[in-house]
Amino acid sequence: MTKTQQVRLARRPVGLPGADTWTVTTEELPAPGPGQFLVKVDYISLDPAMRGWLNDVRSYLPPVGLNEVMRSVDIATVVASSHPEYAVGDTVSGTFGVTEYALTDGAGVQRVDLAVASGPTWLGALGMPGMTAYFGLLEVGRLQPGETVLVSAAAGAVGSVVGQLAKAKGATVIGIAGGPEKCRVLTEELGFDAAVDYRAENVLRRVREIAPDGVDIYFDNVGGDILDAALANMRRGARIVLCGAISTYNAEKLPPGPSRYMSLLVFRASMTGFVVFDYADRYGEAVAEISRLLSEGRMTAREHVVSGGVADFGDTLGMLFRGANTGKLVLAL
Amino acid sequence: MTKTQQVRLARRPVGLPGADTWTVTTEELPAPGPGQFLVKVDYISLDPAMRGWLNDVRSYLPPVGLNEVMRSVDIATVVASSHPEYAVGDTVSGTFGVTEYALTDGAGVQRVDLAVASGPTWLGALGMPGMTAYFGLLEVGRLQPGETVLVSAAAGAVGSVVGQLAKAKGATVIGIAGGPEKCRVLTEELGFDAAVDYRAENVLRRVREIAPDGVDIYFDNVGGDILDAALANMRRGARIVLCGAISTYNAEKLPPGPSRYMSLLVFRASMTGFVVFDYADRYGEAVAEISRLLSEGRMTAREHVVSGGVADFGDTLGMLFRGANTGKLVLAL
Repeated sequence: MTKTQQVRLARRPVGLPGADTWTVTTEELPAPGPGQFLVKVDYISLDPAMRGWLNDVRSYLPPVGLNEVMRSVDIATVVASSHPEYAVGDTVSGTFGVTEYALTDGAGVQRVDLAVASGPTWLGALGMPGMTAYFGLLEVGRLQPGETVLVSAAAGAVGSVVGQLAKAKGATVIGIAGGPEKCRVLTEELGFDAAVDYRAENVLRRVREIAPDGVDIYFDNVGGDILDAALANMRRGARIVLCGAISTYNAEKLPPGPSRYMSLLVFRASMTGFVVFDYADRYGEAVAEISRLLSEGRMTAREHVVSGGVADFGDTLGMLFRGANTGKLVLAL
Repeated sequence: MTKTQQVRLARRPVGLPGADTWTVTTEELPAPGPGQFLVKVDYISLDPAMRGWLNDVRSYLPPVGLNEVMRSVDIATVVASSHPEYAVGDTVSGTFGVTEYALTDGAGVQRVDLAVASGPTWLGALGMPGMTAYFGLLEVGRLQPGETVLVSAAAGAVGSVVGQLAKAKGATVIGIAGGPEKCRVLTEELGFDAAVDYRAENVLRRVREIAPDGVDIYFDNVGGDILDAALANMRRGARIVLCGAISTYNAEKLPPGPSRYMSLLVFRASMTGFVVFDYADRYGEAVAEISRLLSEGRMTAREHVVSGGVADFGDTLGMLFRGANTGKLVLAL
């Protein structure tokens, strides 16, 4: 038997998740049965989308149930196996949840090659955020060389890949982020052409200064006022890629939508939502391209790794909503 | 010399245009010079988009200037000509404005065949509203047979063509309109499958009852709460065609946008704006198809013709914003 701590959803939060949202439980896992293997979780991915999974509403995934282990994607090591394809020592990724150990039959599990990239990078640029950036920018946004791309939460897990990928494809890239240090990272370390500090600057006016002819793609991770500022800065035929709306996820009631949405008409523009899981059969293509850019030094994978136990999950998640991370936020157990 | 009355923009309205928005002036037009002809206006088109042209903001057309003749599309008869291609008695359409007579060199003027349809129909189903319906539904909306189409302001000039065209293309069609009489016209006279009375019914719930699996296309002429109700009733891959937002045109400040816009993400849906003028080189294709449907009795052109002088323009325009018209609103001089 293996003892494991897990974080479960104790109460659905109203507004920001707090200490009473979570409960830490301990259980014993049996040895793996035939076709099963036991993994020890090394890294837990923390994602803005997690906030949506806590609400009891119909969405692209069912909500996490009360008293269920919190859903998360993890990088883990196989520590015991009765599965023909997985051996002790293998590194895998899977939706094991916020737990120290998990028993699995391998459904939905992917093998991870640490020679290609580290565990945290497999949760970031080569994980769901990287896939989201790749398919959002190229498939939904249909980026063409020479276009101008604006991306919000640009120093975050998805935004930092969107911007670098767009640069690699020949675009001009403007990132929006909070605070001078993140803006410095964008332009000095990640190769963005310009950065706008939404905490200090008027985003609408600053983007207009930087790109007076407007932008071709706005990749939206935040919603709220920044989405409206982008709507005022479209170029004809622009595409808004709706990836997330972190500024609204903790609102206690549905906030107003983008008041400037009729700019879509004036600019013959579109706003399109997507869910990365729809591209699951093409993740290999994205991993190949992003890992090539990483190995050629044309892209930098940034992760913000917090060390702790599963009990630190709630506090670490809170960092996302305060914008306290630069790059992909990961909890290392 | 020909004396003509004209309506000019006296003052930019805040909120609903009122009597002080307009001024009626009289001027004398000289006889047509070489390459010119004089038209007598028979019918003036009244369109929701006119409200936008009164605001001093950058849009898809420049605003009407103060003291300029109000912009409108008219059906007119040539009454004097020194133009080689136009003879007295010809019927034409053009952007002559709210005026009794106009002198023109023929730029932007189209010949109109009254054997195909009446003057008012050339301003409605075969005019800008019909073109808007056709390209919005088929090009922007990419309607496929068997899909479900929801359209607002369904008894209006654009909406009534959208619904009938969608039916002719094999769609299931739900119209939203104000009041039982308009709803009766939709289902009993125009062949809609269902109608929702937004003044008496909860649109979100009623659409869900009629189309529990959601709609594939929502053709939006109104914005506001009805757009939000539609966003809650999308099918996966749905397209929202942004044509107008009449519910907001007279707002004194920019109203909040659609609070449910993140439904676009959940449903992998899009919201796309368009301006019909972009399809000007293809109007012939739309006129051919719509006139064929009209002649085969598969489409009914509805116009709401008000008789009066140009001085009645302001009051007649007000009918649009009260929803007092069923079908295309036209002022017959």
